This record gives sequence, C-alpha cells and structure tokens, in this order.
Amino acid sequence: MVTSMTQVDYGRRMARAGRAAADAGLAGLIVTPGPDLTWLCGYRPTAVTERLTALVIEPERRPRLLVPVLEYPDAEYSPGAWAMEVSGWTDGSDPYAEVAKWMAPQGRYGMSDSTWAMHLLGLQRSVPGSGYAALSEVLPMLRAVKDAHEVELLAAAGAAADAAYEEILAVRFGGRRESEVAADLVRLLTEHGHSQVDFTIVGSGPNGANPHHEAGERVIEDGDMVVLDFGGLKDGYGSDTTRTVHVGEPGAEERKVHDIVREAQQAAFEAVRPGVACQDVDRVARKVIKAAGYGEYFIHRTGHGIGVTTHEPPYLVEGEHLPLVPGMCFSIEPGIYLPGRFGVRIEDIVTCTESGGRRLNQTAREMAVVR
Amino acid sequence: MVTSMTQVDYGRRMARAGRAAADAGLAGLIVTPGPDLTWLCGYRPTAVTERLTALVIEPERRPRLLVPVLEYPDAEYSPGAWAMEVSGWTDGSDPYAEVAKWMAPQGRYGMSDSTWAMHLLGLQRSVPGSGYAALSEVLPMLRAVKDAHEVELLAAAGAAADAAYEEILAVRFGGRRESEVAADLVRLLTEHGHSQVDFTIVGSGPNGANPHHEAGERVIEDGDMVVLDFGGLKDGYGSDTTRTVHVGEPGAEERKVHDIVREAQQAAFEAVRPGVACQDVDRVARKVIKAAGYGEYFIHRTGHGIGVTTHEPPYLVEGEHLPLVPGMCFSIEPGIYLPGRFGVRIEDIVTCTESGGRRLNQTAREMAVVR
Repeated sequence: MVTSMTQVDYGRRMARAGRAAADAGLAGLIVTPGPDLTWLCGYRPTAVTERLTALVIEPERRPRLLVPVLEYPDAEYSPGAWAMEVSGWTDGSDPYAEVAKWMAPQGRYGMSDSTWAMHLLGLQRSVPGSGYAALSEVLPMLRAVKDAHEVELLAAAGAAADAAYEEILAVRFGGRRESEVAADLVRLLTEHGHSQVDFTIVGSGPNGANPHHEAGERVIEDGDMVVLDFGGLKDGYGSDTTRTVHVGEPGAEERKVHDIVREAQQAAFEAVRPGVACQDVDRVARKVIKAAGYGEYFIHRTGHGIGVTTHEPPYLVEGEHLPLVPGMCFSIEPGIYLPGRFGVRIEDIVTCTESGGRRLNQTAREMAVVR
Repeated sequence: MVTSMTQVDYGRRMARAGRAAADAGLAGLIVTPGPDLTWLCGYRPTAVTERLTALVIEPERRPRLLVPVLEYPDAEYSPGAWAMEVSGWTDGSDPYAEVAKWMAPQGRYGMSDSTWAMHLLGLQRSVPGSGYAALSEVLPMLRAVKDAHEVELLAAAGAAADAAYEEILAVRFGGRRESEVAADLVRLLTEHGHSQVDFTIVGSGPNGANPHHEAGERVIEDGDMVVLDFGGLKDGYGSDTTRTVHVGEPGAEERKVHDIVREAQQAAFEAVRPGVACQDVDRVARKVIKAAGYGEYFIHRTGHGIGVTTHEPPYLVEGEHLPLVPGMCFSIEPGIYLPGRFGVRIEDIVTCTESGGRRLNQTAREMAVVR
C-alpha cells in the first residue's frame, strides 16, 4: 500500500490519541464530525447531520469509523482511511447499537466537544454502564501542541491575514457601511489564499464596544474608532488578528485607551514562555488594564488556541492552570470596551517556543489612521 | 411595550413549547443555538462556540436565556427577547451552575439535538439527578407542523429553487466541470432570493451513483446522466429539490430507470394524506422500485422534513410510525444508484393538507435533455 506523508501523519495522530486516552485512564475516544475528526483522520463529511458518523479510537486497536452507508464512498477515500476500518450503517438500523459493539461495557470515553447531544444520549442508552467526558476537558492538549509543519501552516495563514490588513488600510472607511468594509476584508482574505472566511468584524464607534458585534449597516463616520477582527482558514489552518484603526486623527482619550491595550498586549506577549500557566498570561494583560483604571471594561479572556479551528484549547483565562508548552499556538487579544462610545482590541496569534513567544502576525500594532 | 406580529409569534411558540413539554411529561426544554433556538425566540448568535448559550423553557414560567456576557447586547435585541429573561455569564464562571439554578432537581428535560455533548455533560454533572432526551425524540412534532405563514415561506423558497432549475437547463453541461455547473446553481439560487445556499450537488455519470457526492472536478460528458440536488434558505425557510437530467439523448436503460424513479415519486406523493404513517410513504416508493427489480439500489430513506432547516423531522423512513398531519412539510425523493454507472433521483418538497399532498416544487419531473 502506498501512503503519502500526510496519510502517515493521520495514522500517527490516531495512534498518539489512543495512547493519550490510555494515559488519561480512558477506554477510548469517540469522535464525530468536526475539527477533531478532520485532524485525526482527514475525513470531513459534507455536512454534519442527524445521521451518526463516529470514529472510535481505543489503545492498541485499529481505529474504526462508522458512517451512514450513503457516505461510505467519501469516507473510504479519506486520507486516514488506510489506517482505519470503515463501515456503513443503513437508514432504519440503530447506529448506536453498532458503536456499542465496539465499546468496553463499563468504559469511560472521551467524546469530541461538539458531538450532538442526541448522539451522546443514544450511546448512554445503548451502553448503560458507559461514562463520558468532553475531549477538551480530559485531553485538552490533544491538538494544542502543534508540530513544526502545523506552526508553519498557521504562520502562512497569519501572513495572509496580515497582507489583507495592509491592503484594507488603503480603502475608504468614512461614509461607507461597516458591511462594505467587511466585504472588502472577505475579498482580500480570499485573494490571499483563504479557502474560508469565518469572521470579519468591523465595529465602528459605539459598535466597537460590543466585542462580538460583526459588521452592520452603520455608516462609518469621520472620527470613529474601528475595530477590525478577521480570520478564517487557509490550507486547513486558522488566522485571527485584530487591529483598531481610527478614521482621521484620534483624540487624546482614544490614543490613551489604545496605548493601554497595546501595552497590555505587549506585556502578555512577553510573559509567554514554556511552563507559564495559561491564566498567568491573562493576568499579566489584565493587570496592565486594571492599573490604568479600565479593569471593568476588559470583559473577556485574553486568548484562545488556534489550529484547524479558530477557537480551541488552550484558553488564556483565569482558572486555566495548564502550563504553556512549545508548539502551542494561541491568540493574545486584550481589549477595552466603553459602552456607547468605542472599543479597542489588539490581537496577534502567538506560538510558544523554547525561548519565549513568537508572533505569527507582524503588522504594526500602533493605531493606524485611515480615511 | 410595542411588539410586532413576528415578536408575538415567538412568544406564542415558546408558550406552546412549554405546554408540549408538560404534555410529554418533561420538566422543560433546554435549547442551545441552532434551528430550535432560532425558531423559538429568533435569536441566532454569530457562531456556535464552546461558550454556553441556553434557553430554558418550563411550563407556566417565563423562558430564560443565558448567554456569554459579551453576546448579551445581541441577545437583548432578538425578536423574542421581550418574552424572556435574558442574562449573561462571564468567562471564568460556571455557566452550568447558573442553568442548574433554574432546573428542577430530578427533572427530565428535552434537549435540542445539536447541543454540544460538552454542554450536556456539564449539566449532567451540575444537576446529578437530572435526565435528558433528544428534542426530536420526545417532541418530534414541535417544529414539524407548520402554520400557514410558514408553508407559504416554504412555497416561496421552492418557487425560487424551481426558477433556478428552469434556468440551469439553458446552460452548457457537456465539457464543463461539475463544480462549474454547481457555481451556476449557487448564482441562480442567490439571484432568486436565497440568502444561504446549503448544497448544490452535481453528480454526473458514475458520480451520480453516490447520493451524497457534491460537485467535483469531473468534466461532464455527452451521454451523462446528471443528478442536480440543490437548496438553501430563503427568508429563513428551506428549499430542496432534485431533478436528474441527461446530456444529449438518453439510452433505453437510462429512460427506464428514470421512469421507475418518477413512478415511485408519484406513487409516494399520492400516498400523502393525514393519518398515514411516515414509514408507509417510504414503503410505497420502495415497493415500486423493488417491483421493478432495483430494490437494492434505493439505499436511503424516502424523505425528511424541512422548515428553518433542510433536514428535520418528520423522516419518511421504515420504523417511523408518526402519522402525517396537515401542515407537515417534507421531501419525497426516491432514487436508484447503479455503482460505477449513474444515479437517478427526483425530489419535491410536499406539504400534507386535509385533502392530500400539495407539491411545493412545480417543475417537470420528466427527464430533461440538456446540452
């Protein structure tokens, strides 16, 4: 059998996942469509539906993938298929009973976070003694530590997002709707090689004070702060970067708030090194903002991991004691949100190396003035 | 408080869902982002993430919606917000403990099918005596019976898909890639008012024998059968129709197989009337195909419900005893798939009325000859 390097990667990942499951005291892993499945075996069904697709990984056993029979031809050609047993179930039969045959009767399994509740309930019913835990809780590190190839894919996605940012600075902001600037960002990310654009937040003026505002019909005005937060997937790996720009010359308070956020972002970046707890990076950023008197306006965590998704462990948040490990990749994105007025956020993807952090976004973090 | 007609609809739906829960012996419903949430309260968060958003509906109580605090401003402005209590939780706090406060200690809850397993596990841990069942199992009819307004929205989506089909017949098939014809379908559906295109299957020649093949790089040849299955959302409601066309004049076997599928589709359509079990509609279609000697090549169920999603209860499948009720809307889509050769599928959306079925797709089901 001829298997490509990538195919070999998938076999290795599944074997590693089996060992990690055993180390965590689990009987195995049950993974349904989503980023874990894509990462483990390269299979990404057309759509996530009510029909069960499940990969069962157990230590020292060949992984098994159950799919709806009409999706069998696709599954059979997935790059990890050579290392799995693939079988199909037919509409009208009970897929949970099928998976149950493979499971240890009293086994405790790690389950992909986004598995549908109806599937978990189906397995809980079919295997009464079984136990389950969310994969991100029991094996938070499974996908968190990237190999060199993955880091370079993330760096390439970051470079593409940076190129999009450099070009967006040249477009007109004042007098145009947020949604128009967002459409420009979609176009630029696509031109720079993104196969999928996941978000293009354009938060102008008071809209910038809502961290999850997307892009609306508000017409951007001269004198507005504008939060630009955008990203997606390039060659299967994620980008996610934020810069806050100003239409025309900013005022003193806008400069001050922007400087505080930039200082917090820099301090958190400098705190990155192996062994530091995730929550400590969050604390460093928060401390800067609090000391400047804006603590109550930093209303979200400092960052999240990134890989085949744009939101995954590790999370840089109070209570997350996991230590940073070389190869981890995550956002550092403190912000200040002044309700009804404006918001500022600055975000880079950073990877932890033996010697500290390495930014995967390189554009200037100083506030850019746009038209 | 001024509430629009649509806002009133959402309040009514939540009240109806609470009563349906009580009738089903449930303490209540727990609904996370997805079609159930959209349908119940009109709230559709930007993205479904690892942060819990949950609507808790209990009979005779005001519904409560918990959202990540940074999404509070969006949730507060959703059309159903007037009829709910909306509150936010902060990163680092435990959202499951928050929801647990609202839940009956030993209560059994219906849970939206696509709720993430990690959230279900979080609630199972926080409320040890609680029980759960998938919403589509305990309340399969919750969204299945459409009101007149919904049926008209589905009819409008169907008419738009029909218009796209009429126009696709004029494009060139032979010598172009499946993906190019699929791109034409995306453009046409969009031009005819679809806000979202969910699938544009172009299965030419042997690719048509894989029912879930999407559209690939295969160049369509003269003499190919081509399965066209496409749909998406228009004004929040779904379309989904399939026609199988032929490039140039078809041969005798192709005509024969197409005629059998058309006959099966017609027979199943004529079987639709209130009180008939879902599985009986499937049986009628299957009987025709089996009698013609192609039983083993009809490898999927006959249909699925449609509404704010393109795949939902009721399912027309062996084992589904639910009786049809006026207002139900579903696909009827038998097919024959000859491995390595070609496939044929014909699909209309049909609604059950007091007097029988009404098709929401009106284009000719005879095999069209394309260039």
